[in-house]
Amino acid sequence: MPKRNAFYAQSGGVTAVINATAGALIEAARAHPDRIGKVYAGRNGIIGALTEDLIDTSLESTNDIARLRHTPAGAFGSCRYKLKSLETHRAQYERLIEVFRAHDIGYFFYNGGGDSADTCLKVSQLSAAMGYPIVAVHVPKTVDNDLPLTDCCPGFGSVAKYVAVSMREAGFDVASMAKTSTKVFVLEVMGRHAGWITAACGLASEQAGEAPHLLLFPEIVFDQESFLARVKECVERHGYCAIAVSEGLRGADGKFLAEAGTMDAFGHAQLGGVGPRIAQLVSEKHGYKYHWAVADYLQRAARHIASKTDVEQAVAVGRAAVELALAGKNAVMASIVRLADSPYRWEVGVAELKDVANVEKKMPREFITADGFGITEACRAYLAPLIAGEDYPPYRNGLPDYVRLKNVAVVKKLAAYTI
Amino acid sequence: MPKRNAFYAQSGGVTAVINATAGALIEAARAHPDRIGKVYAGRNGIIGALTEDLIDTSLESTNDIARLRHTPAGAFGSCRYKLKSLETHRAQYERLIEVFRAHDIGYFFYNGGGDSADTCLKVSQLSAAMGYPIVAVHVPKTVDNDLPLTDCCPGFGSVAKYVAVSMREAGFDVASMAKTSTKVFVLEVMGRHAGWITAACGLASEQAGEAPHLLLFPEIVFDQESFLARVKECVERHGYCAIAVSEGLRGADGKFLAEAGTMDAFGHAQLGGVGPRIAQLVSEKHGYKYHWAVADYLQRAARHIASKTDVEQAVAVGRAAVELALAGKNAVMASIVRLADSPYRWEVGVAELKDVANVEKKMPREFITADGFGITEACRAYLAPLIAGEDYPPYRNGLPDYVRLKNVAVVKKLAAYTI
Repeated sequence: MPKRNAFYAQSGGVTAVINATAGALIEAARAHPDRIGKVYAGRNGIIGALTEDLIDTSLESTNDIARLRHTPAGAFGSCRYKLKSLETHRAQYERLIEVFRAHDIGYFFYNGGGDSADTCLKVSQLSAAMGYPIVAVHVPKTVDNDLPLTDCCPGFGSVAKYVAVSMREAGFDVASMAKTSTKVFVLEVMGRHAGWITAACGLASEQAGEAPHLLLFPEIVFDQESFLARVKECVERHGYCAIAVSEGLRGADGKFLAEAGTMDAFGHAQLGGVGPRIAQLVSEKHGYKYHWAVADYLQRAARHIASKTDVEQAVAVGRAAVELALAGKNAVMASIVRLADSPYRWEVGVAELKDVANVEKKMPREFITADGFGITEACRAYLAPLIAGEDYPPYRNGLPDYVRLKNVAVVKKLAAYTI
Repeated sequence: MPKRNAFYAQSGGVTAVINATAGALIEAARAHPDRIGKVYAGRNGIIGALTEDLIDTSLESTNDIARLRHTPAGAFGSCRYKLKSLETHRAQYERLIEVFRAHDIGYFFYNGGGDSADTCLKVSQLSAAMGYPIVAVHVPKTVDNDLPLTDCCPGFGSVAKYVAVSMREAGFDVASMAKTSTKVFVLEVMGRHAGWITAACGLASEQAGEAPHLLLFPEIVFDQESFLARVKECVERHGYCAIAVSEGLRGADGKFLAEAGTMDAFGHAQLGGVGPRIAQLVSEKHGYKYHWAVADYLQRAARHIASKTDVEQAVAVGRAAVELALAGKNAVMASIVRLADSPYRWEVGVAELKDVANVEKKMPREFITADGFGITEACRAYLAPLIAGEDYPPYRNGLPDYVRLKNVAVVKKLAAYTI
């Protein structure tokens, strides 16, 4: 096989470990100079491919690429931009192929969630239809843990660890204050449709009575009355009540409790603010003093408290993506396969993209307690290994020493293109 | 001097390192069995003394007391309860002395901020007036860093580190997303009247253009127009804008922008929500997509990313308090004295309580840039050493292994007392 260049892009919301995947993928590609030429990264995700705004990663030092392992967010820029359907917007896909052809790109690595798995699949289909040979491999990334056919998604374990640690710490805080001050604490976490992050908050509690006391999942319709009754019972029994709530909590009408009314580029509603709403509700009905926190980007960018398991899996899928591509596996996704819960063992597997694209993996009902407010032992067995281990970044001047790449642009060869 | 017992209590909002002070103080007291009998801790702060609800810390193992060093929040419970004035509520103070007499307490250690410094002073004055010998020593603690006569307050350095780390991480995140999605990120932090925590966010930026781009201090009247102009300029120049805002931001009318309308037991307004307000304002005027986070208790409980300097100072003031008491220093506070900025050197000093009580140390104007939106080099030189070093807690099952003490109550000797 002739030597060809590779394209790599980051898509959608970034994570604490997507750069660990990027670094591992670039390192793995560099280890095969006979097969892979340069790795071009898309500046701001797939938009970089459409606009021919490619970053020459070969100009980054070995050391800087290694530092990606401990740097959060998207080093090349990400984007919220979903390619339209192949039927109605074929020209967009043809432009991608045109850019790939101009830069002799034979490997397409797309690092993202469900939407990008779909794009990756279409690129693969169109290249076949157009007779342009390219191997398209999807690399999983999402804090929401909602991809099918992988035991978990790189990015999730670190958010899970962050929210569990934060919930434990805030729980200790409110327990200290409850006698004369705050009795109810609400932490709002991400997870629009799938309650994995909310569930992870539950790991903070290892014995009955410990925070958090109530979890509000997007999968469970919010029942105000039973919720309020449980809060009262909890405060009366334990002196305080700590609650984790998903940003995607919905009422019986199917609407988000905290619909902000705006949409993102994927047509998803922009959420935020259900935490304060829940806290205020408790205050109105019970009169308890409350505090609330909304972690927002802090949770998914928190590389400082990343899960070691998560970092290792992020690295593994990056490496595996290159191996899959070199083995000619097209339209696939590197996946995580669980071999055992305890002691935890896992390996990298492979999934067909056609089975991955546009499928959302929600929490199974048996992971949520019958009352809808907690996690079961089965859920704990699933989640616990994913937050195991610490993988601290190096520090300089008291702050994590994250890398900023040079991100030098490749000279354009094509006419300008407006997206 | 005859051997006498000691009383220790935690007051006001708790911190990531107040237990480090408690542990060090108890260890230091145990090292003087000839002079100090038992250390009794007030359950829920001074309320424990008023209600004779004392915790016998001698029943806690050496190991568990040592574990307080890495455990956040208040191990004995804190309270928001301010003793009234000596003139109008003399009976409260007399009750304290009565409890101390019943349990042969000769040392009074009060670990808190400005309000508790005041209480500590009054206890000392009344004991003298009543002829009951007690040595009252205040031990500084406040995330707000607003105590006078100490270079900094234990508790502040760790919040400062947490917000600086979080701002750096969120800054990397929004920079990755800005091309097609979020352009403005707002982090709301604590600090009702003093902008020290807001200032600490500024440490995240080490070069021009890095996040955060704008700081909104409680000391600077919020000027909507100049703020909005700066946001626009920042987004146009850097592609995004990261903002840290103090919960205590005020408008030209002197009112908090986010007054929740409720008061705590000290008569302070309960705040929260200025972050989303600022974000929404930017969106309304400029149309930028935004995200916001409110760290709330997460910031002050974040022992997982405590500053090593802060932990060491928290331990030092705990030890010093015992030494001061044994030396008969009454009505004093252990303080931190800075000897040099770089390399940073410090030692423990002593301040007179009469000079400490009820004085609030705000940010000096020369620590804030002329435009009111940033920190100066002088401010950086002051803040930088306070966030230096990491002091990670041990982990078990992927989570920090924080101690829960037994907190066994001492048998009561007096009639019940209603506060």
